[in-house]
Amino acid sequence: MNASDATRPVLRPYLPATAGFAAGKDSPREFLERCLVALEAWEPRIGAFVTLNLPEARASADRSTARWRAGNPLSPIDGMPLGIKDIIETIDMPTQNGSPLFAGFRSERDAASVAALREAGGVIVGKTVTTEFAATEPRGTRNPWDPSRTPGGSSSGSAAAVGAGVIPVGLGTQVIGSTLRPASFCGCYGFKPTVGALNRGGSYDGLSQSATGMIAASLPEAWQVAYEIVKRTGGDPGFPGLYGPATPPAPARPRQLALLETDGWADASPGARKALDDALARLTQAGIAIATRYDHADIAAAETAIHGARELSFDINAWESRWPINTYSARDASKLSKAMRDRLVQAEAMTVEDYRGMLTERQRRRCVYDALAPEFDACITLAATGAAPVGLHSTGNPVFVVPASMLGIPAISLPVLADGGLPLGLQLMGFADRDAALFSCAGGVLALLK
Amino acid sequence: MNASDATRPVLRPYLPATAGFAAGKDSPREFLERCLVALEAWEPRIGAFVTLNLPEARASADRSTARWRAGNPLSPIDGMPLGIKDIIETIDMPTQNGSPLFAGFRSERDAASVAALREAGGVIVGKTVTTEFAATEPRGTRNPWDPSRTPGGSSSGSAAAVGAGVIPVGLGTQVIGSTLRPASFCGCYGFKPTVGALNRGGSYDGLSQSATGMIAASLPEAWQVAYEIVKRTGGDPGFPGLYGPATPPAPARPRQLALLETDGWADASPGARKALDDALARLTQAGIAIATRYDHADIAAAETAIHGARELSFDINAWESRWPINTYSARDASKLSKAMRDRLVQAEAMTVEDYRGMLTERQRRRCVYDALAPEFDACITLAATGAAPVGLHSTGNPVFVVPASMLGIPAISLPVLADGGLPLGLQLMGFADRDAALFSCAGGVLALLK
Repeated sequence: MNASDATRPVLRPYLPATAGFAAGKDSPREFLERCLVALEAWEPRIGAFVTLNLPEARASADRSTARWRAGNPLSPIDGMPLGIKDIIETIDMPTQNGSPLFAGFRSERDAASVAALREAGGVIVGKTVTTEFAATEPRGTRNPWDPSRTPGGSSSGSAAAVGAGVIPVGLGTQVIGSTLRPASFCGCYGFKPTVGALNRGGSYDGLSQSATGMIAASLPEAWQVAYEIVKRTGGDPGFPGLYGPATPPAPARPRQLALLETDGWADASPGARKALDDALARLTQAGIAIATRYDHADIAAAETAIHGARELSFDINAWESRWPINTYSARDASKLSKAMRDRLVQAEAMTVEDYRGMLTERQRRRCVYDALAPEFDACITLAATGAAPVGLHSTGNPVFVVPASMLGIPAISLPVLADGGLPLGLQLMGFADRDAALFSCAGGVLALLK
Repeated sequence: MNASDATRPVLRPYLPATAGFAAGKDSPREFLERCLVALEAWEPRIGAFVTLNLPEARASADRSTARWRAGNPLSPIDGMPLGIKDIIETIDMPTQNGSPLFAGFRSERDAASVAALREAGGVIVGKTVTTEFAATEPRGTRNPWDPSRTPGGSSSGSAAAVGAGVIPVGLGTQVIGSTLRPASFCGCYGFKPTVGALNRGGSYDGLSQSATGMIAASLPEAWQVAYEIVKRTGGDPGFPGLYGPATPPAPARPRQLALLETDGWADASPGARKALDDALARLTQAGIAIATRYDHADIAAAETAIHGARELSFDINAWESRWPINTYSARDASKLSKAMRDRLVQAEAMTVEDYRGMLTERQRRRCVYDALAPEFDACITLAATGAAPVGLHSTGNPVFVVPASMLGIPAISLPVLADGGLPLGLQLMGFADRDAALFSCAGGVLALLK
């Protein structure tokens, strides 16, 4: 079957192919061309990209091909085609932030993550669609599994492109649920690192619980791309950056997991509940202990601590978004969505003292959650309340993924569940700065469930 | 004497004038026009501004005048003419970062601090000269006290403009010594807040020990401008923001000060040493206890902790500057100074593990310094090794002010000393998040020495 005939998405991992590159049986340029065939087939249906730079992508892939042939690749991801969420700056393409206020805007530089990925030999194919300023207002991207459905957001384009098999990895960001939710809806692997773990320089998301994340065709690729970024540019200034090995952490079957229902359980679809219950049954059968709020006091305390995570996170984000929304509003309020204007009104009713109180409350909740670390390998829950909802007017419910954002912890979504024949993610939540341990655990769970 | 005849700088405070505004005897527009007369006289000699927007400044002053007349000023600084360091974004003027790479660059928005100041009624007169990317390469600004001398840097233009009496307050930033050193050299008040205390959104200084600061014609104005910023936009995301009252903290005579020689004492000029010794004698005479490394073990430990502050800070900054310098270098390395290219070479020899080690070391040093907080109201030392040096090729020695940057603590420079008939700052260093207490202490010291 020619890729252009594809009607079902097929994840297109890059990393296993590199053995072929070294042997000369395949090359980054050939890999890219296969991606571009998929792009041609899928892009009209899903609208994942806002800008493409194919001449530069091809030239970059050719340079990578030459390096692999010479036996001198710059990194394991040398030649990997990548999509960059359009709130992250690129020197060769505009950064439009999903906003008409930034139509055609050029920052004249690469973001830290993009510069690092280019140094590692990454092939930047294009800028992927984001909701308005990575917040709520969708920009028309469709889900490759069903174009009548949302791909999720705010990293809509990266998830749709990876989910359709157009690219192996797309950069996203997450402050509420913007990496794991679209990964869940589009059948991709999603990784939101510990807050501060990857340098956000040049990304228009300075919020205190936001993190650059990966939407990927495989778990190892999510790790490797993150690693290549931190190796070259560190974490956010003042943060230690992602801890972990130069190659993907080896899968390790967890001993004990904590099930978190979160505020989401009440909203979960019957299919999603059954999918999670079935997965938990298989894990239990494999000898993994699963504890819950009903039999463990620390888990009950953690459930209480993450209750209302969405509301607290929205409030924190509102204050932290007062700027720059106020300057955008002053420039041309008619070019802001109603959701964005409403957020500004909310922010302008807040005081810095209100904000301090919220930071203190967030920190208190983080400490309660951290008490689970000595006993559990990770927490487990859904990544979404069900399959992607029908309609493009909303990017769906983030209730299951916002706790990890509020807590600043690493989280991974594995595309191993289904709801009504559509993808649904299984979420594993780790502990701050222990991203590598979470990858090992996720790999162990994946081996049992895939 | 007409201001245009001025040959000696005269600080031009704004705040005491507001009584005249309310009474209709003076107005923000008239105040601005007096500033513009000074600008016309001084600017050809000092080159403090890189961009001016006088039509907008006049319109803004007129709106302020109307508000004062109606009895509805937006804040105590409504109508205050301000200069904005040219690494801080302004919607109506380019942000050129002291670099030919950013010639004419427009970010299409106001920085958080600028948006807040406009909301408070501040009148933005223009963008003040910065060294290249707020680092070391000077851009020709001259010292109003002696045009053959540097005004200091990197906030060169803000200090020169305030020192000449052109504007009452200019925004600066400091990651090594970029606010207090030029304040010292130009005879201004300088305030570098606790790290994170003022929102740096839209300022091209994301370094972990950098802070937005004030160079001011008076101590109360430095406080008030900082307060009006934090009230409206908070601190950096995730930080509690500047703590303190809505009006300048009342001066309070300190009980006990810790003298810190720092690495700078060995480099201080005879005149600077004598100026400090004389000031200390007057403070002692007034009943303030001054302890030193020679009679207090905690001070000796703090001296050891700040030894090498410059080297550690340069190394931390180098890693944190790897991006964006690498992307600027990729764009056109010929437009970077040799100092900037050298910094990139240094950064590229570092690893994220090196950086983690430096962060740990910095934190250790901060804890040692913090041990002084229970016993001392503040630490006291020089703000510079002497008067501004002759020549425009260097912005002078930051050795006395870099410890406060490394420690992340608030620091104030008072223009109460002299060296060879030229200004020299007396520095007070406080404790993290206790900026208001430092202001009270500085006010008490000022009352004794001015």
